[in-house]
Amino acid sequence: MQATETLARFLADARPEDVPERVRHEAKRALMNFFATALGGCRDQAMEIALAVLAEHPGPATVIGRSERTDMLNAAFLNAVSANVLDFDDTHLRTVIHPTAPVAPALFALSERRPVSGAALIHAFVLGVETECRIGNAVSPGHYRRGWHITATCGVIGAAAAAGKLLGLDARRMVFAIGGAATQSAGLVESLGSMAKSIGVGNAPRNGLVAALFAERSFTGPDLAIEGPRGFARVMGEAADLSAVTDRLGETWEIMRNAYKPYPCGVVLHPVIDACLELRPQVGAPERIARILVKGHPLLRERADRPDVTIGREAQISLQHSVAVAFLRGAAGVREYTDACVNNPAVLALRRKVEAEDDTNIPVEAALVSVRTEAGETLTAHVPHARGSLARPLSDRELEAKLRDLAADGAPGCDAERLIEAVWRIEGMDDVGKLMPMSVPAE
Amino acid sequence: MQATETLARFLADARPEDVPERVRHEAKRALMNFFATALGGCRDQAMEIALAVLAEHPGPATVIGRSERTDMLNAAFLNAVSANVLDFDDTHLRTVIHPTAPVAPALFALSERRPVSGAALIHAFVLGVETECRIGNAVSPGHYRRGWHITATCGVIGAAAAAGKLLGLDARRMVFAIGGAATQSAGLVESLGSMAKSIGVGNAPRNGLVAALFAERSFTGPDLAIEGPRGFARVMGEAADLSAVTDRLGETWEIMRNAYKPYPCGVVLHPVIDACLELRPQVGAPERIARILVKGHPLLRERADRPDVTIGREAQISLQHSVAVAFLRGAAGVREYTDACVNNPAVLALRRKVEAEDDTNIPVEAALVSVRTEAGETLTAHVPHARGSLARPLSDRELEAKLRDLAADGAPGCDAERLIEAVWRIEGMDDVGKLMPMSVPAE
Repeated sequence: MQATETLARFLADARPEDVPERVRHEAKRALMNFFATALGGCRDQAMEIALAVLAEHPGPATVIGRSERTDMLNAAFLNAVSANVLDFDDTHLRTVIHPTAPVAPALFALSERRPVSGAALIHAFVLGVETECRIGNAVSPGHYRRGWHITATCGVIGAAAAAGKLLGLDARRMVFAIGGAATQSAGLVESLGSMAKSIGVGNAPRNGLVAALFAERSFTGPDLAIEGPRGFARVMGEAADLSAVTDRLGETWEIMRNAYKPYPCGVVLHPVIDACLELRPQVGAPERIARILVKGHPLLRERADRPDVTIGREAQISLQHSVAVAFLRGAAGVREYTDACVNNPAVLALRRKVEAEDDTNIPVEAALVSVRTEAGETLTAHVPHARGSLARPLSDRELEAKLRDLAADGAPGCDAERLIEAVWRIEGMDDVGKLMPMSVPAE
Repeated sequence: MQATETLARFLADARPEDVPERVRHEAKRALMNFFATALGGCRDQAMEIALAVLAEHPGPATVIGRSERTDMLNAAFLNAVSANVLDFDDTHLRTVIHPTAPVAPALFALSERRPVSGAALIHAFVLGVETECRIGNAVSPGHYRRGWHITATCGVIGAAAAAGKLLGLDARRMVFAIGGAATQSAGLVESLGSMAKSIGVGNAPRNGLVAALFAERSFTGPDLAIEGPRGFARVMGEAADLSAVTDRLGETWEIMRNAYKPYPCGVVLHPVIDACLELRPQVGAPERIARILVKGHPLLRERADRPDVTIGREAQISLQHSVAVAFLRGAAGVREYTDACVNNPAVLALRRKVEAEDDTNIPVEAALVSVRTEAGETLTAHVPHARGSLARPLSDRELEAKLRDLAADGAPGCDAERLIEAVWRIEGMDDVGKLMPMSVPAE
């Protein structure tokens, strides 16, 4: 049997009771992180523009953290933008897909149009993540390396699968949904670093949802959307291994490889920030610092050696800036990556004292930071696994705290405690459409 | 200067008076053909489904041939679907782009939201066609051959350019619009033959319009969307020649290479149908036919040797079916490519008498058809250039007749004469938003 049909049958036949409890719990952790980052990003400039253009018609669907309501498809777009815009959302490390932003918004938007139970939503979400990450596995690493923004390109297919499941599509219609999504697969790595990144990410749940809604009404698609001679894998896959799509389907769960960021910056910087925060109490006043030496995997310097940054978005991939704020402020949160913070004179001064060295013996998720004080003392911290890595995942409590923090920052007035409570209890909700309005600040 | 910036500056600086009259007339011919095919396709099954899903919210924008009105973005999608769904729209032969369906719907949708003059619309349309076809030239033939549905993939960039021009974007914002479009470029050849083809075609004007509207509000995009290391040309271009985008910009006009189909079927079949229609009066009653021999370029058999077809959509690329209906009905219009006609016993019987032979000396746009009668007579017709080819273009009157026919078939009650008149006079309209409602049947 071929990849598209095998996948479609699996999705159509899948039953909630076949998904283990730990997998469903991980889905809730992913959603907690999703609401956290969407609340943090919901007033970003990219969001303001997208809202002004797209949400001109009122509708039934909630835009997370905002009082505006719009139609289902535009809400799906907007909630993916806010969840991903800060680069603070989750990461499937093997593919670098951010799995939740392309999938969850399609499901929540649908839940405000038709009655959907929380258990059905969690099941569809797990299947959507499974679909996008398996397709991502099949085309990695060539696909991203060629220049495809994999979160958008594979995300749209995951969204169609998830929305298709929530709509109860049979295997034939699920093939149509996958086809309708594959032919919309788009997103260039060239767009990263500009707001245009958000167009691809926003389109993923929107267009996946369109594909599923069309398929529901028997809008036909190609039989071999993934594996056909002019299908996704041949056209965009760069020597895809399609067995990764179908092998052990329903036995392994890609969402278990999902990681959540404690800091809104490049993941290579995370162990460095951990080490700085660990050293900070020993160092005392930052004025005591003469020099900071960071040793890490060569990828660290390749991606993040940027001593002279001037805007927040660039600072998110600056080693020097991240080290400086960790010592000066004892934090590396959204507030530490604003334009104002980047141009703060004390931060600027400390950035100049940071040096970096490659060490091929250090893994990507580890780092070694040494501080030499003005008094000539040397203090060192070694972090073997960054916080938020799979070896040292954020706890449930840490995810709750992340949501609380980002809500306070991005959507003051939102009742974070009520939302947190609802996410943990989502599987007991008969009508999960009631959850989305909880993400909006009280009038 | 780089391709993206050069193109953006050209678009931003272009003035209507720099476009020659013959180019502007060709634009009106393209629009005549556009309204014709959209009226013919506006009740296709793919359209009915897309309308049901997308047009649930009423809005200011007209859906050609239909009483429903919807918002600007969904109208742009729907009007591209109806214009292209029958494969009866125009063709830029060098790239096989159907240039009008991705561009015109974005402009007409915009014209129903903001006051736009007909002259400005024609100018923007010419520039959009120029943009998509030049980008298509740059990536042909590798791009389509790899599996990219070039009408959708290049069309979205043309739509952004055209809509951006109508919005008056400066060069910087035009770069953003091109970037926002390039990162949405999508559409797999695998989807052709199923309804999913229409998703890519519909998205082209919709997403191009989104990119332009975002750019208007300074939603940033990459500087090098076309030529950058992870930009359109490297990721999707297959050894692109970017000089084709920028050389002699404003001096040559791609719309002058646009062709209009007299028959709603594969273009390789057109000279064959011409020859059959020429022979028909000499042959007399079809029962007299013993055998029909068609000689053509090898591409004819490669694309269209399909003696056993059962549905209309497949018959559109069947040599045998097209020959049979030309002799039996003296026509090869939309009515000859319905499922009913395909399964008509007389058509079926005549199809069996058709044989085809390759002749490498015959060009693609030519054909030689011989009929042997039951009486042993042989009658032959040679067509050196098909009707609708660049060497033998449809006349303005033939385009008007095409609109009249398709309107009668697909949107009875639409005042075709009034619409035809308005298209020819479009450049004199102060508010071109008044044109679209003329494409709708009277209540």
